[in-house]
Amino acid sequence: MVDVPELVAQAREGRPRAVARLISLVEGASPQLREVMAALAPLTGGAYVVGLTGSPGVGKSTSTSALVSAYRRAGKRVGVLAVDPSSPFSGGALLGDRVRMSEHASDPGVYIRSMATRGHLGGLAWSAPQAIRVLDAAGCEVILVETVGVGQSEVEIASQADTSVVLLAPGMGDGIQAAKAGILEIGDVYVVNKADRDGADATARELNHMLGLGEARAAGDWRPPIVKTVAARGEGIDEVVEALEKHRAWMEEHGVLAERRRARAAREVETIAVTALRERIGDLHGDRRLDALAERITAGALDPYAASDELVASLTGN
Amino acid sequence: MVDVPELVAQAREGRPRAVARLISLVEGASPQLREVMAALAPLTGGAYVVGLTGSPGVGKSTSTSALVSAYRRAGKRVGVLAVDPSSPFSGGALLGDRVRMSEHASDPGVYIRSMATRGHLGGLAWSAPQAIRVLDAAGCEVILVETVGVGQSEVEIASQADTSVVLLAPGMGDGIQAAKAGILEIGDVYVVNKADRDGADATARELNHMLGLGEARAAGDWRPPIVKTVAARGEGIDEVVEALEKHRAWMEEHGVLAERRRARAAREVETIAVTALRERIGDLHGDRRLDALAERITAGALDPYAASDELVASLTGN
Repeated sequence: MVDVPELVAQAREGRPRAVARLISLVEGASPQLREVMAALAPLTGGAYVVGLTGSPGVGKSTSTSALVSAYRRAGKRVGVLAVDPSSPFSGGALLGDRVRMSEHASDPGVYIRSMATRGHLGGLAWSAPQAIRVLDAAGCEVILVETVGVGQSEVEIASQADTSVVLLAPGMGDGIQAAKAGILEIGDVYVVNKADRDGADATARELNHMLGLGEARAAGDWRPPIVKTVAARGEGIDEVVEALEKHRAWMEEHGVLAERRRARAAREVETIAVTALRERIGDLHGDRRLDALAERITAGALDPYAASDELVASLTGN
Repeated sequence: MVDVPELVAQAREGRPRAVARLISLVEGASPQLREVMAALAPLTGGAYVVGLTGSPGVGKSTSTSALVSAYRRAGKRVGVLAVDPSSPFSGGALLGDRVRMSEHASDPGVYIRSMATRGHLGGLAWSAPQAIRVLDAAGCEVILVETVGVGQSEVEIASQADTSVVLLAPGMGDGIQAAKAGILEIGDVYVVNKADRDGADATARELNHMLGLGEARAAGDWRPPIVKTVAARGEGIDEVVEALEKHRAWMEEHGVLAERRRARAAREVETIAVTALRERIGDLHGDRRLDALAERITAGALDPYAASDELVASLTGN
């Protein structure tokens, strides 16, 4: 058995091995999962979680790396969670783009973790929030959550962030791609990366139009900014950080940050509870209860809904 | 409110409108869903459910239509359920290939239903079994369940059939395609359609090899037959029916049919129960319980697992 309090103490000192160990414990649904989660709870809430989404090729990893540098210059401890929903490899797996982050590899103020979710119980909704909790409790002041891949999972990741950054690049019909994937609406901050390329202004204009950013908004509403960057040269990154800080301040002022975090916690509890209840039903395959109900159904003595009622009643006592 | 007993009586007389109405009631999660399911229960169990799967272009619809003709010649009432897991259109929607079935459109002994499952609560696992129950209770002696589309959903459909037919066609690298999709192993009967084309024998041989059909089996084990057909001309269809009847007889002799149906019923109950429990949790969004837990989590006073325990306990009373 792992000495959880000791491990947590080491993680808070910034020891990467302790952080890695804790994430493995919460990722792997270990017997000590609950002990770890309980130990982390009072230490969480300090991190600002930023989600980065966008189609492959827009420069997500480069932008993430540039943001890490910017936050490090400001003296902040940074955690990076690179989530690959399509890969079955997890843990220490170094994703292709991760090598670009190697400049931060020896920095004790930066913790980088690649995470795969395919085949995971509950997938992204289950595993990412737990890893975020570990990084938060370990004292990361900023956590950048970057997805490798596209589509629905990006929306899911974004729903776990305090602030969502949607990245685009000139050309590539990115605006339309992003719109299709349903990620265009989720941005709190938009970044047009590779802005030294032709068409950057057109992409920004197109985005501005698609989002209706030119239209009047109610006073106090958040108007997502569009920031142009050349992440590979670090250009515009300070402006992105500034936009993030503005959004954070706006959320705090309007109670949005607390509300988002409550909603996120509620979803987290819901996912865990549904999984637990499903497991309880699964356990019934071992005993005769479910079999007996199935037998009565095939005999025509019971319909599946009445059977479900009996099953739920036997689980819930009402 | 619908007069359910009257509707069921009409459906048993073979009135297509009554059948359609009943399927709509069970598909749409209407308030009378439970009443309908309870009324159907004692009338079910008489139908032999055959699943047809295979890549697009192998001639699934043509084969289904030819099988309908064969069963009609034998005087049996036939139900056809064409499931399109990718389409949001349901009910009366006539899928492209459905027109080929038009020869059966005026036959009162045949009921044809297209069913879409995208966006459906619980998807295929939830909606197809209910429609099968309606057709079964309505007196269909054979129900052919055909999927439009490929992949995981095919495996799901097959799991709901008494006997699974996997269709292939020469060329197209179908064997490999089917193997990839995971549907190669699920066949109780294999059909190489378009057998008048070059390569039909090679496809049958390849299949025979991939499935290890040439190897010795224990006495009493089912050895899936490979039947060659030209469904468009009705060739080989009687042999398919014969293979199906042999499989059915084998299943009855070895208790496999009852076991498959029990397993199917158990899965059905499980799906309904999980959905019901999930809805109960969902209802909590309305009251303050889940909110209060989320509040305590964001304050660091509680971890999500402990919160889930409280939630489950409040639902289940233990």
